[in-house]
Amino acid sequence: MQRRSFLKKAGLSAMAGSAAVAAPAFAQSNPQIHWKMTSSFTASLPVLFGSAQLFCKMVEEASGGNFSIRPYPGGELVPALGVMDAVGNKTVECGQTASYYYYDQDPAFCFDTAVPFGLNARQMNSWMFEGNGMKLTREMFAPRHIVNFPMGNTGTQMGGWYRKEIGTVADLKGLKMRTAGFAGEVLSRMGVVPQQIVAGDIYPSLEKGTLDAVEFVGPVDDEKLGFNKVAKYYYYPGWWEGCAQVSLYVNDEAYHGLPKPYQALIDMASRHAGVQMLANYDANNPAALRRLVAGGAVLKAFPREVMDAAYSAAHAVYAEFSAKNPLFKKMHDSYMGFRDNVVPWFRVAEGSFDNYMGIVLASRKK
Amino acid sequence: MQRRSFLKKAGLSAMAGSAAVAAPAFAQSNPQIHWKMTSSFTASLPVLFGSAQLFCKMVEEASGGNFSIRPYPGGELVPALGVMDAVGNKTVECGQTASYYYYDQDPAFCFDTAVPFGLNARQMNSWMFEGNGMKLTREMFAPRHIVNFPMGNTGTQMGGWYRKEIGTVADLKGLKMRTAGFAGEVLSRMGVVPQQIVAGDIYPSLEKGTLDAVEFVGPVDDEKLGFNKVAKYYYYPGWWEGCAQVSLYVNDEAYHGLPKPYQALIDMASRHAGVQMLANYDANNPAALRRLVAGGAVLKAFPREVMDAAYSAAHAVYAEFSAKNPLFKKMHDSYMGFRDNVVPWFRVAEGSFDNYMGIVLASRKK
Repeated sequence: MQRRSFLKKAGLSAMAGSAAVAAPAFAQSNPQIHWKMTSSFTASLPVLFGSAQLFCKMVEEASGGNFSIRPYPGGELVPALGVMDAVGNKTVECGQTASYYYYDQDPAFCFDTAVPFGLNARQMNSWMFEGNGMKLTREMFAPRHIVNFPMGNTGTQMGGWYRKEIGTVADLKGLKMRTAGFAGEVLSRMGVVPQQIVAGDIYPSLEKGTLDAVEFVGPVDDEKLGFNKVAKYYYYPGWWEGCAQVSLYVNDEAYHGLPKPYQALIDMASRHAGVQMLANYDANNPAALRRLVAGGAVLKAFPREVMDAAYSAAHAVYAEFSAKNPLFKKMHDSYMGFRDNVVPWFRVAEGSFDNYMGIVLASRKK
Repeated sequence: MQRRSFLKKAGLSAMAGSAAVAAPAFAQSNPQIHWKMTSSFTASLPVLFGSAQLFCKMVEEASGGNFSIRPYPGGELVPALGVMDAVGNKTVECGQTASYYYYDQDPAFCFDTAVPFGLNARQMNSWMFEGNGMKLTREMFAPRHIVNFPMGNTGTQMGGWYRKEIGTVADLKGLKMRTAGFAGEVLSRMGVVPQQIVAGDIYPSLEKGTLDAVEFVGPVDDEKLGFNKVAKYYYYPGWWEGCAQVSLYVNDEAYHGLPKPYQALIDMASRHAGVQMLANYDANNPAALRRLVAGGAVLKAFPREVMDAAYSAAHAVYAEFSAKNPLFKKMHDSYMGFRDNVVPWFRVAEGSFDNYMGIVLASRKK
């Protein structure tokens, strides 16, 4: 407005006139900035890596190409699980990852992704954007020189693939299961022997019987690995991941050096890509699950006894960690306080509607 | 990139040089554009209208103030329910509304908001962004000169306030209920007598007994109207609104006249504000419900018999409308096909996790 009226007063045509007066504003607000993004994922997990690509596309489009970010799959610039360090020390300006990959550095980081018997995807969004989640996770990652943004969610994951049925808690004793982090900690208290095995070795290990079970993501991603052929029992729910939030990490110096409009683009584009990720999983999991079942997968719910034992084991771990780790306690208390407040409400309108729809559609199927 | 290398070749400093060569690009890509937005909501529904305000704020921030949109509450520029016409004829460039308000013009519009026994909020996002929802709703609104964007959701709504208990379908006969649109159509088949009453008259009508029931939104919005004092039975779920999607309408000519980066901003800012709306409802409904119950509301689930009768009545209406309205049939078949595909999957990981959490937290409460 101001620029326009100035031009009018000066009696210049808008086009020619702007060349003389507007360029410094342009140079300040729309500088050419070109970043790299590293990821913990590759094209073998197309929904996850696709969301990083969508983020970059939206930033570029909305800035008219002046701010571009090029996404690199895990391992190309830095190792897949080295995103936190690479962004923190500005090897790359930003990265896509899941904070619970850094469990070994601090289990408190898991509250930015998933913890056993935690929030579902909607509740997680609510804690992040309307509870204290955003504030507390920002504080948590500040010493790592990271500004974090939620960028998607898988929804509730599956409980994994098992060679034998899990009828009781006793069936977990000695079970060699590929799992890690917080889930591994809780499962080990229930007798499971967590195994760290690189992705390519999982299938042969299950085939040979040196591995009894594996947890991965959900139908869309699990289908590609063919587990149904060697470990047919497909359990649900993945109680250690009622949702799994994916994060965008931006180096703090790089972020604070951006003009405000570009900062707003990062905020919006990360939410945009995040919405797309969950929408994609929700749209494509149903058919993937049907194909898995047609291919021999036997769908099973964890018995109530197993769920209850896991719930108790998880909450014992929470108490232990909270007692010795003040950051963990701070995150835990906010996150679990939010959970205990929101879950009863979700049983009312939302849960009763979902349950009725599930029942009525099943009963009306031929 | 191109501009940079040109500058290098020309041997000019980036700052001084850009003044000479970059301004036309600036004038084209960052023009000063100032729009008005009308809304169907006012500050009396702060989560809904707040989301319109957030949308405008994000667009302005990300454009460095060059593209601004000023939100006006319902009734200030045009009537609250006149958004479709006002945007279509470019009285205002854009508007926030819910498409089911235009049920009387075509019941097919409801598929952009909510229909009885339809999708929940996550499923709706999935149909819109990864199913055919976006494509089909765009086609549907094109003759109205509207480009639509999803911009939030309330989640599953409550079933409303009743002066007497609803024990059987027979209890609905002759019930004078404030409701409209698709819900009114289905409820009238079950014996309800739908009433159109302006908001300010609802409370006195319930008090005098000239009205027996009212459906509104959910705890956050219902609480303000004080219905619990005159119609204490608070039923769930609002089976006619498993979710209610709010829409941004943009006039087509105005939209297509925008530079591409501004179009991308509208896309991203509408999703951004939409995420915030649902997060806000989810965060604040629990406490609002507790206050309502403390204030005398008696929380009740609709009996299974009532739900089943409503399900049948709704699907009879779908069959009737589909037979005589090809647009309705097209929308219905895509939407319901998506529902029938996605709901069984939601019972598996997602539903079993949610149900377990609801049960275990209730059982561990003192």
